[in-house]
Amino acid sequence: MDDDIKLALRAIKIAKEKIGHGCGPFGAVITKNGTIIAEAVNRVTLNHDPTAHAEILAIRKAAKVIKSHNLHGCTLYCSCEPCPMCLGAIYWAGISRVIYTCDRHNAAQAGFSDKNIYDEIILDAKSRKIVFKQIANLNGEEVFRVWEKNESKIPY
Amino acid sequence: MDDDIKLALRAIKIAKEKIGHGCGPFGAVITKNGTIIAEAVNRVTLNHDPTAHAEILAIRKAAKVIKSHNLHGCTLYCSCEPCPMCLGAIYWAGISRVIYTCDRHNAAQAGFSDKNIYDEIILDAKSRKIVFKQIANLNGEEVFRVWEKNESKIPY
Repeated sequence: MDDDIKLALRAIKIAKEKIGHGCGPFGAVITKNGTIIAEAVNRVTLNHDPTAHAEILAIRKAAKVIKSHNLHGCTLYCSCEPCPMCLGAIYWAGISRVIYTCDRHNAAQAGFSDKNIYDEIILDAKSRKIVFKQIANLNGEEVFRVWEKNESKIPY
Repeated sequence: MDDDIKLALRAIKIAKEKIGHGCGPFGAVITKNGTIIAEAVNRVTLNHDPTAHAEILAIRKAAKVIKSHNLHGCTLYCSCEPCPMCLGAIYWAGISRVIYTCDRHNAAQAGFSDKNIYDEIILDAKSRKIVFKQIANLNGEEVFRVWEKNESKIPY
């Protein structure tokens, strides 16, 4: 069997196995050079942590394993298409490939907000369901000037 | 001084203060009923954690404080516009209001990818810089059927 299929099936398998243990119905596996370095399932309600999606937890574990915030060269296998939060994390981590099985429409049918959030993110801030308000005259960009002058900074 | 301005300035202040301690140039403060319940700065390189944005860390802390993944009624103050990862987390957490000072364009000028990720997320998977590949015939949606049948599930 093709390795991508095998690992995608593993993401599905761990998700299914953990549903009876209070976990949400999502699984993720991360490989580097063909070896699994991290895997996780959704623990949002179990951990009281709205960010504890399978992909986020797997990314955090993988980064700890390789002692770097940069996961370039890694592949992420997900039981379902990553939501916008997880997609953002994938970009920040510099993951190279993402393989997923079902998608945001399947998640929506099961009552999850992934598709809604994809729909909201492209809206002008004023049209969103959550209030997003910029107070632009507070000189917040000054933080970046302090950062630029700091010689010990690690850009990412 | 208006409370929103005061708390947005606090997000800027904590970001500036921590830059010399290895933190990235972003700060976040979360309030509930006018009281600060969590605050954080960016610790991506310090923690070897690509998800350790100020907003994500503040959301995780706040959820721990109130022992719920649901932060409805809370306001999030950010020194800079939240990136797509943090915007997703804001929706999953059900935060009610987001106040920010500078934006994705200011972050881009300082070398951060926020705007790039906003540009990528709206692209068709095949046009993105990171490979996103669906293997649709693996019956991943079966995980949702197992979830739906589990009587102890906590929907969110």
